[in-house]
Amino acid sequence: MGSLSRAECEGLDARDPLAAVADEFPPGDPGWLYFDANSIGAMPIAAHRALGRVADEWRRLRRRGWSDADWLDGPVRLGNKLAPILGAEPGSVVVCDSTSVNLYKALRMAMTLRPERENIVAEAGAFPTDLYVAEAAARDQLAGGSLMRVEDANALAERIDRDTAVALVTHTDYRTSYRHDLASLVRRAHTHDALVVCDASHSAGAVEVGLAAAGVDFAVGCGYKYLCGGPGAPAWLYVAPRHQAQAESVIPGWMGHAEPMAMDPHYTPAEGARRHLAGTPSVAGNALMESALDLWRDVEPQAAFAKHKALSDLVIRVVEDLPSPRPMLAAPRDPARRGGFVSFRHREAEIYVRALETAKIVASYRAPDIVRFGVSPLYHRYVDVWTLGERLRSLHPERSQ
Amino acid sequence: MGSLSRAECEGLDARDPLAAVADEFPPGDPGWLYFDANSIGAMPIAAHRALGRVADEWRRLRRRGWSDADWLDGPVRLGNKLAPILGAEPGSVVVCDSTSVNLYKALRMAMTLRPERENIVAEAGAFPTDLYVAEAAARDQLAGGSLMRVEDANALAERIDRDTAVALVTHTDYRTSYRHDLASLVRRAHTHDALVVCDASHSAGAVEVGLAAAGVDFAVGCGYKYLCGGPGAPAWLYVAPRHQAQAESVIPGWMGHAEPMAMDPHYTPAEGARRHLAGTPSVAGNALMESALDLWRDVEPQAAFAKHKALSDLVIRVVEDLPSPRPMLAAPRDPARRGGFVSFRHREAEIYVRALETAKIVASYRAPDIVRFGVSPLYHRYVDVWTLGERLRSLHPERSQ
Repeated sequence: MGSLSRAECEGLDARDPLAAVADEFPPGDPGWLYFDANSIGAMPIAAHRALGRVADEWRRLRRRGWSDADWLDGPVRLGNKLAPILGAEPGSVVVCDSTSVNLYKALRMAMTLRPERENIVAEAGAFPTDLYVAEAAARDQLAGGSLMRVEDANALAERIDRDTAVALVTHTDYRTSYRHDLASLVRRAHTHDALVVCDASHSAGAVEVGLAAAGVDFAVGCGYKYLCGGPGAPAWLYVAPRHQAQAESVIPGWMGHAEPMAMDPHYTPAEGARRHLAGTPSVAGNALMESALDLWRDVEPQAAFAKHKALSDLVIRVVEDLPSPRPMLAAPRDPARRGGFVSFRHREAEIYVRALETAKIVASYRAPDIVRFGVSPLYHRYVDVWTLGERLRSLHPERSQ
Repeated sequence: MGSLSRAECEGLDARDPLAAVADEFPPGDPGWLYFDANSIGAMPIAAHRALGRVADEWRRLRRRGWSDADWLDGPVRLGNKLAPILGAEPGSVVVCDSTSVNLYKALRMAMTLRPERENIVAEAGAFPTDLYVAEAAARDQLAGGSLMRVEDANALAERIDRDTAVALVTHTDYRTSYRHDLASLVRRAHTHDALVVCDASHSAGAVEVGLAAAGVDFAVGCGYKYLCGGPGAPAWLYVAPRHQAQAESVIPGWMGHAEPMAMDPHYTPAEGARRHLAGTPSVAGNALMESALDLWRDVEPQAAFAKHKALSDLVIRVVEDLPSPRPMLAAPRDPARRGGFVSFRHREAEIYVRALETAKIVASYRAPDIVRFGVSPLYHRYVDVWTLGERLRSLHPERSQ
């Protein structure tokens, strides 16, 4: 295959159907190369305009902003813009709260739909917060449930049985980028009439999640990684349409009421996913998130996922083209099993990531030995991967023979 | 007493120790007079700078923002800035989530501290979301609790007995602006070893809440009214220091872990109020909220509350100086029993509030007959109340004899 050439990358950029989207992002600090989409996605230029608009509405409209501006509709409007990116049905997604809070709601809802069952099953290596929240949700189940931690993806599928209320799956592993086969897990779970709750934080906006096609029951994820919603962006919650009428709101606040402004002393849930909203939406957070979601207006999600796959394959190629000793691929080589970032093992991973910064490369480290390069189909150009390769090579000089 | 004169108000402004703070707010739409601090507080000029700073950090630092900028410390740092305004102990307040989510956490925590008791007692006229959330929290109590709705403030105190786990109090009524005597309610509750959870949304930043002095156990409130944190600002949660070690986190996310970034598969709660954080903080929301809290840096809370009382008394005076038929005072005349706004009854309240808009006055309406004027000690000037009086008078022409 040979070394990746700049000309090859420029050719790929010239044919990239998403090339214009990358122009919607301002450059970062001069000369820096950001491969940290897994920690936080880049800021769209439109984010500035969005913040200016919120400030202007706040200053001028004040309380009339609640009625005259589009503040209160944000969670549902943004959910509908996000749904196609997740492969979700219209009306099944709301943008609200944090991933942790949404996961708590999703797990409690799911357990309420399986009241006679006791267990949540999850991988021991799931994202830690997922496990903390699952333990709390299991403890709060009236029957007194518990969280069963299993070894790995295979064990997760095998452990599901008729005592399982919920299989909780972190869609993409935050260290290895291993991406679960959701459809297969859901089939196994549904065979035993168990439900699947999925945290797709490290997948959404980068790779196919395909919630509806896989038959996932509930899902959550954050807005600030590949979705580019900004630091601490509002998270999202998916409720499969078949559960929407039965799934009661766990934290029933006014925004989930059928008539939020009627000040009804008794709670009547709204139809659809909206009932799972609790408090007043974060208007500034939603404005940033919406400016990022609007970048997808002319983007075919499958085209974005194909570009992400091609970029990720190139990242593997430039790293594997380095002279040894070099970082060793930790992520699956099969792109269908890989999430939003490409990860490698390195004995001195933390030091290596700091060394990358001396070459103006932002990557990220996870203990004990993981180096992660987060790849965005929206703002990365193929030539960025060529530059990454050149800079990495400068840190890995050929040994003189 | 006679009509309020412009000169009198200008004199009050000249002697106002908070006069300089009002200059920290830009004017709204030209000629408009905003008395809707109860629905949403005004935007500080510094809010623009704060948003610019977040955008700049996001663009430049990316994932390094999580470590190099002050994003992750926000909830605790802002809580400590807010604490004196609430009369709360240092380290007892965190800024996070929405009021609804924080109330759910507070009620569940409180009920866990009184596991053998069944009931939450609240006024039937409490803020509706408070009641929805209380019903959910009672339902989720393992013993199977319930929410008891009582008639009014007196009934609330009387109903507390040895079956009461929690007395939930909406500190200031959202229609009448009646402000509960927290110290007296807490004394009554603690006599029966019941706990008090308080929603101070319509008080915080306008009038004295005095959480520590009153002995309140848990409290919550929103950030977007008198605290001027912007539309959908992050809310706050107070946990009395004596409960901090025992009160377990209801939604244990990574931000409440003793070492959030250690990726520990098992949850170890942080010390103090921080353990009640769940997900990643809203960085843009916190930046706006902090720019508003920083306005209090040189403000003595008692001076702000005294100014609020004086302004509110003047609002009553200009309305009561109108020729009849005029709106009739609904709020308590005693400022110690009044919350952040002054409310009046009017048979055609909704139409009246719309008529006020024709005179460029923003007030607010609550069914069936309430007109509310929200008063801010930070940005209202005494002369604003004089202008309010003049404009109201233009809508209430003297009848020719």
